[in-house]
Amino acid sequence: MAETLVLPDGITLESGARIAPLEIAYCTYGSPEHPAVYICHALTGDAEAAVWWDQLVGPGRPVDTDRFHVICANLLGGCKGTTGPGSINPATGERYGLDFPLLTMRDLVETHRALLRELGIERLHAAVGGSLGGMQILQWALDHPEEIGRAVLVCTTARLTAQNIAFSKVARHAILEHDAMDVARMMAHITYVSDEALRRKFDRARRRPEAGMTLRTDFEVEHYLDHQAEVFLARFDPHTYLYLSRVMDYFEPFAEPVTAPSTRFLLVSFDSDWRFGTEHSVFIEQQLLERGADVVRHEVASPWGHDSFLMNVPEYHELVRGFLYQEAAHAL
Amino acid sequence: MAETLVLPDGITLESGARIAPLEIAYCTYGSPEHPAVYICHALTGDAEAAVWWDQLVGPGRPVDTDRFHVICANLLGGCKGTTGPGSINPATGERYGLDFPLLTMRDLVETHRALLRELGIERLHAAVGGSLGGMQILQWALDHPEEIGRAVLVCTTARLTAQNIAFSKVARHAILEHDAMDVARMMAHITYVSDEALRRKFDRARRRPEAGMTLRTDFEVEHYLDHQAEVFLARFDPHTYLYLSRVMDYFEPFAEPVTAPSTRFLLVSFDSDWRFGTEHSVFIEQQLLERGADVVRHEVASPWGHDSFLMNVPEYHELVRGFLYQEAAHAL
Repeated sequence: MAETLVLPDGITLESGARIAPLEIAYCTYGSPEHPAVYICHALTGDAEAAVWWDQLVGPGRPVDTDRFHVICANLLGGCKGTTGPGSINPATGERYGLDFPLLTMRDLVETHRALLRELGIERLHAAVGGSLGGMQILQWALDHPEEIGRAVLVCTTARLTAQNIAFSKVARHAILEHDAMDVARMMAHITYVSDEALRRKFDRARRRPEAGMTLRTDFEVEHYLDHQAEVFLARFDPHTYLYLSRVMDYFEPFAEPVTAPSTRFLLVSFDSDWRFGTEHSVFIEQQLLERGADVVRHEVASPWGHDSFLMNVPEYHELVRGFLYQEAAHAL
Repeated sequence: MAETLVLPDGITLESGARIAPLEIAYCTYGSPEHPAVYICHALTGDAEAAVWWDQLVGPGRPVDTDRFHVICANLLGGCKGTTGPGSINPATGERYGLDFPLLTMRDLVETHRALLRELGIERLHAAVGGSLGGMQILQWALDHPEEIGRAVLVCTTARLTAQNIAFSKVARHAILEHDAMDVARMMAHITYVSDEALRRKFDRARRRPEAGMTLRTDFEVEHYLDHQAEVFLARFDPHTYLYLSRVMDYFEPFAEPVTAPSTRFLLVSFDSDWRFGTEHSVFIEQQLLERGADVVRHEVASPWGHDSFLMNVPEYHELVRGFLYQEAAHAL
């Protein structure tokens, strides 16, 4: 589904390292005549926003592809068509692997901007992202507010906590020291869902209690984690996990001088999210308000934890729809 | 420090499996003339209660070794002197390893009871334990209330949640599939401490920011986890981790018929504990009250998460002291 843009001259990273050529896999939806809405995906997403974010993006959805021209690209460092550690390093003829340079949030943003330049889009009606997606949009809006009319930041953060970094570190340690992407994914998955969600879905149910106790998989929640890991391993490059998770750890945009952004912000958090919960959105709100920005923030009740941003949560969807569409009508 | 009791005839487990000979490593403190207080250790503890629980156990401490005769044994399945998967299987002349039979909470309790029989102790003034330690005491008091006058159950549970089991599963998966005890320990350690504790201790501090970004260890919280894993690997048998963590997953004493226990219970939980938080103690309290037991429950404010039971938290210590000592004076 995704198209690929090839930039032979590539991109110079914030670190000074150069990646060339640069390939960017992207999808577009809706008419180019409509206001442009850019979607940034999270850690394990891809360019096909209308697939992985089908609850939010599509005909009649809050990000309505009948009304907006929607663009989404696989992230720099990704493994879904955009240049990343799994790509061939032209200097060696081999895959980059751990020779891929470290990335910053700004590098991810510059890749999106390079794509938009090629597409001839100078200004976005809006940009929308959850988790790592929201972090990119925040960086983008702080650096180039004139390019983004409205920013929708869902369950995101401007500053990972020590606990966030700790989980991230253990996942990377599992991959780097033990080639254990399955362990990394299982652990991360637990942090994406709430205690309550796991309780509702599985509680303490066992698949075959008549078989007696075992050290291996028995409880339904264990089968679920096994399945999650298996599916994920088949589709994801562990190196991308290393690089993109690290971008998040180092992200701290308000540690730099930031002037008043003209972008208007909608911040949404979920009350059961224990990864980037409401306190993270409150921090972003405070930082933006101190700098004179226009910010609306909502905490939405949802039992699904961090993953709520991908789920059908009507209150959240209505907030996004209202912010994008009413404003669009006003702007058009 | 620990002594070892050898029971040549061993023990028959709840499953019917037999472990013989059975060695039990144990420590005693204080005069045998004083009322006996039994300590049960948690997942990674050992018999030396006055070392690992020095905040609670010792001369002048809440579990006062000048006033009580304190006994603590390494758990069945352990790796600190009591027979476990690292012991030699007499049937093969090799270490048991994964041939060690699966254990139940009752099996751990029966091992403690076998020790007490040998020591000639028929009744305990009290039994005290945190986390897995508390689970053993709960099972013991429900099965043999006449043997335990007072039970102190600190940040424990009678029913692991799906999230608890999920973390436990990922740790076992890391050990079984990747020989990655370090990953298991790092992850578990995050669940033992609160978000707030990590924030206070490390926040986002980096050890060598001037060295630039790295995929490997950089933030202080990462150095801390590396250190925790290294220390732990040097002292602990991964097989013990497998077996004892699984005992916890299957533990659900109130799923069986329980008659009114005559033991008096003190339940303590900590407000920052997100592993076995107050809701776990509330559940135990409800179950015990429904069965007519004498129960006192307190939630104590402490920033340290689950690990609070090992820390110097004065309110908690005074609760334990009051429960043990005033009652002791009354009983003597």
